[in-house]
Amino acid sequence: MKPLILNFLDLSTPEGSFARREPDEALIRVDNLGITRGDGIFETAGVIEGVPLALEAHLARFARSASMLDLPEPNLDLWRRVVVDTAHQMADAGVLTGVKFCMTRGIEGEVSAPTGWALGFIADDPTAVRRDGIDVVKLDRGFRHDVAETSPWLLQGAKTLSYAVNKSVLREAERRGATDVIFTSTDGYILEGPSSSLVARIDGVYVTPPPSMGILPGTTQGDIFTCLERRGLATRVDAVKVADLDRADGVWLCSSTRGAAPVRTIDGNAVPLDHAATELINGDLDARRS
Amino acid sequence: MKPLILNFLDLSTPEGSFARREPDEALIRVDNLGITRGDGIFETAGVIEGVPLALEAHLARFARSASMLDLPEPNLDLWRRVVVDTAHQMADAGVLTGVKFCMTRGIEGEVSAPTGWALGFIADDPTAVRRDGIDVVKLDRGFRHDVAETSPWLLQGAKTLSYAVNKSVLREAERRGATDVIFTSTDGYILEGPSSSLVARIDGVYVTPPPSMGILPGTTQGDIFTCLERRGLATRVDAVKVADLDRADGVWLCSSTRGAAPVRTIDGNAVPLDHAATELINGDLDARRS
Repeated sequence: MKPLILNFLDLSTPEGSFARREPDEALIRVDNLGITRGDGIFETAGVIEGVPLALEAHLARFARSASMLDLPEPNLDLWRRVVVDTAHQMADAGVLTGVKFCMTRGIEGEVSAPTGWALGFIADDPTAVRRDGIDVVKLDRGFRHDVAETSPWLLQGAKTLSYAVNKSVLREAERRGATDVIFTSTDGYILEGPSSSLVARIDGVYVTPPPSMGILPGTTQGDIFTCLERRGLATRVDAVKVADLDRADGVWLCSSTRGAAPVRTIDGNAVPLDHAATELINGDLDARRS
Repeated sequence: MKPLILNFLDLSTPEGSFARREPDEALIRVDNLGITRGDGIFETAGVIEGVPLALEAHLARFARSASMLDLPEPNLDLWRRVVVDTAHQMADAGVLTGVKFCMTRGIEGEVSAPTGWALGFIADDPTAVRRDGIDVVKLDRGFRHDVAETSPWLLQGAKTLSYAVNKSVLREAERRGATDVIFTSTDGYILEGPSSSLVARIDGVYVTPPPSMGILPGTTQGDIFTCLERRGLATRVDAVKVADLDRADGVWLCSSTRGAAPVRTIDGNAVPLDHAATELINGDLDARRS
């Protein structure tokens, strides 16, 4: 991730505003709750030709995360404008870019406004990953599949700045010779990746677990299902048991900048790579202009 | 928490260094992993008369957290000096102060040095809390009591900057008419508070749950046990079942700046307040000068 464009928000008024800053400028105080407590939310949208992708889905999820954290309701008109502006500034970058937008609870101990920004960046080239696939390991998320319903204060399903575990599991994956992770629940359900949604093709149906399982509603997964359905292919949002995944003849981890990354091994066991399906899905994703 | 003194570290060399900055100065970039991922660690030491308390215990726990997150090993000589210096600058504050020191993984996408700082602040006056007690609720932490052993990648027992849940549970407590929380495991064990250790007096013994349960080794709790033992009182580090806590004739949530806060209700049920024991414990804590 190489930062290119930074827009910093002023959220001290209801309408709010934003202004360009240098992306390497220090703008955050050490007592901002975003850094002292990971107390904030974020979204990352892919950008093609200066257009942010799945923007309305990202904005809706941003508002959902804010609500789960009891943060002030974001002014989505403002956030839409700042993300569009940031993406637009990168229209001539000539490479895959993205916009990460964040809102924190602001300064600790003050009755202060939230802090917000949108950072445009150059994304990693996904070509090799989409072609060769990725090696993943399953790791226990430590929670039951229904924890979001029984214990909403654990914020499962909110996209927060408290992502230390999402980074930690990648280091555990690396120790096991893999590069990505599929979280499982303690009671044997497949959940999601630390920064991706899982889509598996099982018995001919493309299936993804439901957000009620304390996982994020996948913005890229949503667009993939729309495209698949348009092509007359079967999709389903449904619980996936660990044993179900063993039966899958295709597994993808789906995220904003990488698209659909085919999984080639899980815990060292080969998973079939369907290059044609992967190319079809990513072709549809890359053809999006909204 | 009102910031008073800020020392910012330069960790780009093995020996490192630090320098005074204004506490309200913006020093953090928006792509620092501390704010984008809550990817860092912290400690908060109480300060009396310019002396940081339980400093060696805080430094040891800081190093332990760094190791759990695969962060570079902190140069404890440097961190000791910066905390002592920060605390010393507040010797004349005339009120209870504290030093919060933090280390993040640094800038995202760069092979960069960690980011570090020590912030001296005025603490909330604990007098009323120590006298009147606090109302707490038990909330499910969502994990089994042995999750730190079975799934270390979940970072339970590390003091990380990913504390959104630790703030979220306080809002849930407030919704239930309380001001603090006791975490429980899914299998019925008492764990800790979101920013405190639990000490309960059960059958005449002061008991606290062990760090092997994915909880922090309490720095204040450690000093309390030393003081109690010095006075010939019985202590034990042992598992506490939820049902055991119902039998306690004294419960305290113990933390660096508040000391031992007696619990007066749990889930609305009265807990005996032993004012003499609370005063004895906090008297011993306040008499510390190291």
